[in-house]
Amino acid sequence: MNTTEFRKRGKEMIDYVADYIETIEQRSVYPDVQPGYLRSLIPEEVPVEPEMYEDVVKDIERVIMPGVTHWHSPFFYAYFPTASSFPAMLADMLCGAIGCIGFSWAASPACTELETVMLDWLGKMINLPENFLAGTTGCGGGVIQGTASEATLMSLLAARSRIVRWIQADNPDRTESEIFSKLVAYSSDQFCATLGTTASCAFDNIIELGPLCNAAKMWMHIDAAYAGSAFICPEFRPLLNGVEFADSFNFNAHKWLLVNFDCSVMWVKERADIIGAFKMDPLYLKHDHQESGLVTDYRHWQIPLGRRFRSLKLWFVFRLYGLRGLQDHIRKQVLLAKEFEKMVRDDQRFEICAEVILGLVCFRLKGSNELNETLLKRINSTRKIHMVPCQLSGKFVLRFAVCARTTELHHVRESWAHITDLASELLQELPH
Amino acid sequence: MNTTEFRKRGKEMIDYVADYIETIEQRSVYPDVQPGYLRSLIPEEVPVEPEMYEDVVKDIERVIMPGVTHWHSPFFYAYFPTASSFPAMLADMLCGAIGCIGFSWAASPACTELETVMLDWLGKMINLPENFLAGTTGCGGGVIQGTASEATLMSLLAARSRIVRWIQADNPDRTESEIFSKLVAYSSDQFCATLGTTASCAFDNIIELGPLCNAAKMWMHIDAAYAGSAFICPEFRPLLNGVEFADSFNFNAHKWLLVNFDCSVMWVKERADIIGAFKMDPLYLKHDHQESGLVTDYRHWQIPLGRRFRSLKLWFVFRLYGLRGLQDHIRKQVLLAKEFEKMVRDDQRFEICAEVILGLVCFRLKGSNELNETLLKRINSTRKIHMVPCQLSGKFVLRFAVCARTTELHHVRESWAHITDLASELLQELPH
Repeated sequence: MNTTEFRKRGKEMIDYVADYIETIEQRSVYPDVQPGYLRSLIPEEVPVEPEMYEDVVKDIERVIMPGVTHWHSPFFYAYFPTASSFPAMLADMLCGAIGCIGFSWAASPACTELETVMLDWLGKMINLPENFLAGTTGCGGGVIQGTASEATLMSLLAARSRIVRWIQADNPDRTESEIFSKLVAYSSDQFCATLGTTASCAFDNIIELGPLCNAAKMWMHIDAAYAGSAFICPEFRPLLNGVEFADSFNFNAHKWLLVNFDCSVMWVKERADIIGAFKMDPLYLKHDHQESGLVTDYRHWQIPLGRRFRSLKLWFVFRLYGLRGLQDHIRKQVLLAKEFEKMVRDDQRFEICAEVILGLVCFRLKGSNELNETLLKRINSTRKIHMVPCQLSGKFVLRFAVCARTTELHHVRESWAHITDLASELLQELPH
Repeated sequence: MNTTEFRKRGKEMIDYVADYIETIEQRSVYPDVQPGYLRSLIPEEVPVEPEMYEDVVKDIERVIMPGVTHWHSPFFYAYFPTASSFPAMLADMLCGAIGCIGFSWAASPACTELETVMLDWLGKMINLPENFLAGTTGCGGGVIQGTASEATLMSLLAARSRIVRWIQADNPDRTESEIFSKLVAYSSDQFCATLGTTASCAFDNIIELGPLCNAAKMWMHIDAAYAGSAFICPEFRPLLNGVEFADSFNFNAHKWLLVNFDCSVMWVKERADIIGAFKMDPLYLKHDHQESGLVTDYRHWQIPLGRRFRSLKLWFVFRLYGLRGLQDHIRKQVLLAKEFEKMVRDDQRFEICAEVILGLVCFRLKGSNELNETLLKRINSTRKIHMVPCQLSGKFVLRFAVCARTTELHHVRESWAHITDLASELLQELPH
């Protein structure tokens, strides 16, 4: 495909994407396919000769769409949101075209520098303590990881190498594996210190945990994968109080900040800690500036070597929404959750199972777990809306997470009406 | 931004991208900026109100492009190629729009199933032994990782959990940390068994290594990050002989197979091994089909939980190039490297430092390391072409890697003329 054809096909794809988003709520939010459905729809082997572009495009609706769970449908309330916005998509196109691999400053200075500055912008947006920011002279700084899991793993590795360094400084003859075998990672059943758990959006008391960790010289990592984006609103920022005790902090801008996956933002107070865990410096990656201390080589901050120019997405989204636009988005989705909570509370057959703090409502029919499992099964099998469950203190609970950027109050009302219809049917079937 | 504006802006961006690729060789391949250049070009904080789209776009040329190393310039010969093609970019736009997170089959069946089938297609393209393929009943199968580093880490974790399982089966009272402290990972200075090292594209003798690993019940992981794509050509496939002894095999389709980053493909013979290392199953990720054994939940195969719909890129590229088109691409780039090798050999002042097997030529001026360091410094500071060095047996060596999809013979000739001009200048300055 040459540039002339790309201009044509690219513009057609833009229209396809716009059409898809515009009409997404006409599709069943959850697909009606059985495992293995796709294999029989396409050949068993690659074609030897190129195919026609039209044939490939036709197959999007024939092969792909029937098997897609539509995460951006306003009727999708499962898991947590995954962000999507047009500015982020435009930035991603640019990112794909530049196609640089930013493992070192020299590999593409703009890629590294925009990331550092965007993480400073975002750190200020959530009012992170100054020592998490890079600035021009700071010891801390931010990095974009792929996912919160990678951020957690990096913080574990950094914590491990820091404590080994400390212990070996006093006891040079103790081996790594001897020290490793004594190390302990403290976690709850949601793992590290968490702000906004996946199950119920619960918050650990980091103001209490933090000083304990500091006193014990433990590395404290805080994961706010979902909730973190909300801290750009002053009214939610108190939930982050205590972050000043942490060594590292992470949230997924790709969940709730309108930046398409992947963009998991992580800050550390001491960049030397994270770099120390992982430095690799073959000659082919060396460059003139790396010993100057002036540049960041992000490959030392992460598991992968390669990395895309993901900060472009942050830059486009921040500038085209503005702080106010992003705050509006968060507030609107919290409001929708509160509205849904009200509807649930107004129906005596249901109960709310966890405090509704942000955009997630955990609720259930008063009654057995089996009853609620059946209700959820019926909800999901009608495919009009989609939810997933969680378990809270042994109870099977339904999660209603406000997810899509385009979800409006009328979608929430319609969804609640649908849920209560199915619940009424189910309750009528029960023996009295 | 609503869909109407997205249609307009998206089409403008398509043209920007096409223009960028069409005129890329008019740009300096390596940027002329100093560390910290970008921070002073943009505000210190996020704007509160949204900005005009035009202003953001203007800043691409003002802020970003001056700091970009142009990996897709035909004059870029550094590191290894990072793939880029229009079909992959189109697929990526679709991927961004669907924006599903494929951590489980249910989270988007098409995302999981297309990946499994595409990895089977690709496995057949490189003639992988049958037991690495998923098929409908296989025990093996493929997965897309972000990078080769992640694939290596996953194979380490899988190897570790497999040997712990084996040892504990016979000795149930031995603890994990006791076993861990005895485990050994064998590697060369390029790490695991490697086909096509980064420094010089050297190949380990896996036919010799393989049976040793198998006899010792060691996990054998083979990394062919760069070279792997070449195995779609029958004439290069013998380089992969011995893969039948491996437990896992990986290469980066995002390097040389025209699939934009990230797309690192990995196969395992026993999917149970990789899943065993990493299974996580909270209630909110459970779905009806997971106990049936019919579906793949890729979150168990990787470090991250979330994952994009990356197999769309493989699908578009495979179909729009066809096997023949992809083979042509590999062969052309190898041929260009061979042509460059000839030019070097024809100049008595230079020497070739490693056998040229694929698209990389390692060469140097006969003489001191300092001389070659100076030559490379001058080459890179004129910014007409870009290369990085490597160290081979203590010698400072220049690497000429054919990278961009659009590199033609005339670019290679022009680049060699440029290198020899600079070399002549340098040699004339030396005291006789």
